[in-house]
Amino acid sequence: MLARSGHEVHFLVRRSAEEIRRRGWIVESVWGDFSVADPLVATDPADVGPCDLIIVALKSTGNENLPDLVQPLVGPQSIALVLQNGLEVEEATAALMPAGQTLGGCCFLCSNLVGPGHVRHLDYGRIEAGVYEGPGAKADGFDREEARSRLKSVVACLADAGIPATAADRLADSRWRKLMWNIPFNGLSVAIDAATDAIMVDAAARELAAAIMSEVYAGATACGCDIAAEHHAAMMEHTEQMVPYDSSMRLDYLAHRPMELEYIYARPLRAAKAAGREMPRVEMLYQQLQFLERRNLSQAKSS
Amino acid sequence: MLARSGHEVHFLVRRSAEEIRRRGWIVESVWGDFSVADPLVATDPADVGPCDLIIVALKSTGNENLPDLVQPLVGPQSIALVLQNGLEVEEATAALMPAGQTLGGCCFLCSNLVGPGHVRHLDYGRIEAGVYEGPGAKADGFDREEARSRLKSVVACLADAGIPATAADRLADSRWRKLMWNIPFNGLSVAIDAATDAIMVDAAARELAAAIMSEVYAGATACGCDIAAEHHAAMMEHTEQMVPYDSSMRLDYLAHRPMELEYIYARPLRAAKAAGREMPRVEMLYQQLQFLERRNLSQAKSS
Repeated sequence: MLARSGHEVHFLVRRSAEEIRRRGWIVESVWGDFSVADPLVATDPADVGPCDLIIVALKSTGNENLPDLVQPLVGPQSIALVLQNGLEVEEATAALMPAGQTLGGCCFLCSNLVGPGHVRHLDYGRIEAGVYEGPGAKADGFDREEARSRLKSVVACLADAGIPATAADRLADSRWRKLMWNIPFNGLSVAIDAATDAIMVDAAARELAAAIMSEVYAGATACGCDIAAEHHAAMMEHTEQMVPYDSSMRLDYLAHRPMELEYIYARPLRAAKAAGREMPRVEMLYQQLQFLERRNLSQAKSS
Repeated sequence: MLARSGHEVHFLVRRSAEEIRRRGWIVESVWGDFSVADPLVATDPADVGPCDLIIVALKSTGNENLPDLVQPLVGPQSIALVLQNGLEVEEATAALMPAGQTLGGCCFLCSNLVGPGHVRHLDYGRIEAGVYEGPGAKADGFDREEARSRLKSVVACLADAGIPATAADRLADSRWRKLMWNIPFNGLSVAIDAATDAIMVDAAARELAAAIMSEVYAGATACGCDIAAEHHAAMMEHTEQMVPYDSSMRLDYLAHRPMELEYIYARPLRAAKAAGREMPRVEMLYQQLQFLERRNLSQAKSS
């Protein structure tokens, strides 16, 4: 959508670069289909050079590659917008950026990459962005007002391109609010091998999802977040009305890929514990997922 | 072993009665093989009539059948010995017996029925028996001293037959001690589809099993049980050294049979909660198992 609205957008991709260059981007969207012809596609960030805005949309299981990927894109005025899932997921990017120039965003959308350069956008699409103030953020020179003005310019730029983006007062609140859904439903979808609809129609599984969500809410509150008490009931009701949805974690598991456990489970658990709040069910789910992931990856190797 | 030592033992069986009558019992045992020729085999308890000792070895998922099965066997002096797994599992039998004439026993053994009348005894074999004093036990006429003297005579009878049986001071302590193993390892074997050895070699799964065991220990303590603090470490170490073992719960699950969730999970959870102790991980495991059981049984029906 940024490219469509006239911005110079470089797409840094791992594979299919030649095919994407030749065919362009094809976007099937509930908001209307469109395509982007002759896109700027790179596989080496050195071919791109410093950017005004660096959008990090890598899966967080690959964050150890961020120095190689992001460093060549950073100039003195660059802003990074990290669109990954989980808590403190901006930390790895923030370490590569000037102080106060890292933003994070929660994406509320259902969208899949269905082929090279071919995106299918099924539902939703909101981005809630905020200034990253977590571990490693507040280096010398961090100025909250300057950071917020950068946030507002980025949100305005996204909104101009037709993306429903909003500026959150506190990014951590947005992150935890999204975790209230991701922690129970992503994890259970793998641990008990069930999509959202199967969980919601079973009394025990539904009660378990609600109990896990309550723990996350309590963890968020202990960490100083301000989330409306009604959010829990609203999320459960919302999930009930959702079309059956396979979480990205379940898709990763089925494809024998690593799951985003570090930022969706380990970091929230650590943050809540540091604030004096245990989340025993979340911890149990994390332990089960670690076990399942290890077996799953070793089976992938041996097959 | 009771039949071998000369007692009149009636075997009440659901199936293969004719075959067992014809071929007798064949017992392959680490303690020495033996057989029992011309056993007394019945399929209808009315054909047996009142017994001195009624050994209840039915799987607890069939406890709703106990009135039909046990009532015809009860005389004024009958004693019942309930050799089922779980907490308060004697309640259904005690309701059919005169006050103070119900005993419970924990079996510590590895043994399988491998064919009609064909038992394979692989390891262990101790029975720890005690007077049932749980819900429904203390009807009018319950006399603890009389009950304990019945317990001692039954234990002596078993011991005379070569069975290493002991009289426990408090049955609830024995039950909870066994639950400290059954609750984590039976449940996890189904929930994460893993035998004991796979759990013990994985750091996260092992830590989870230990955490669940700690909850059960705390629950038992809240219920007034007196279990040595070292029991936890001893059980984990013991499990590490066990041969890989498929729990009976996992075998039930794989065979699409109901699992013994009521007495191994629901009752301990309820008892601990009544004593003011939550066991969140145990509750989560129970919820996962209920979900898995419902799906498993409905798949069995539809296939």
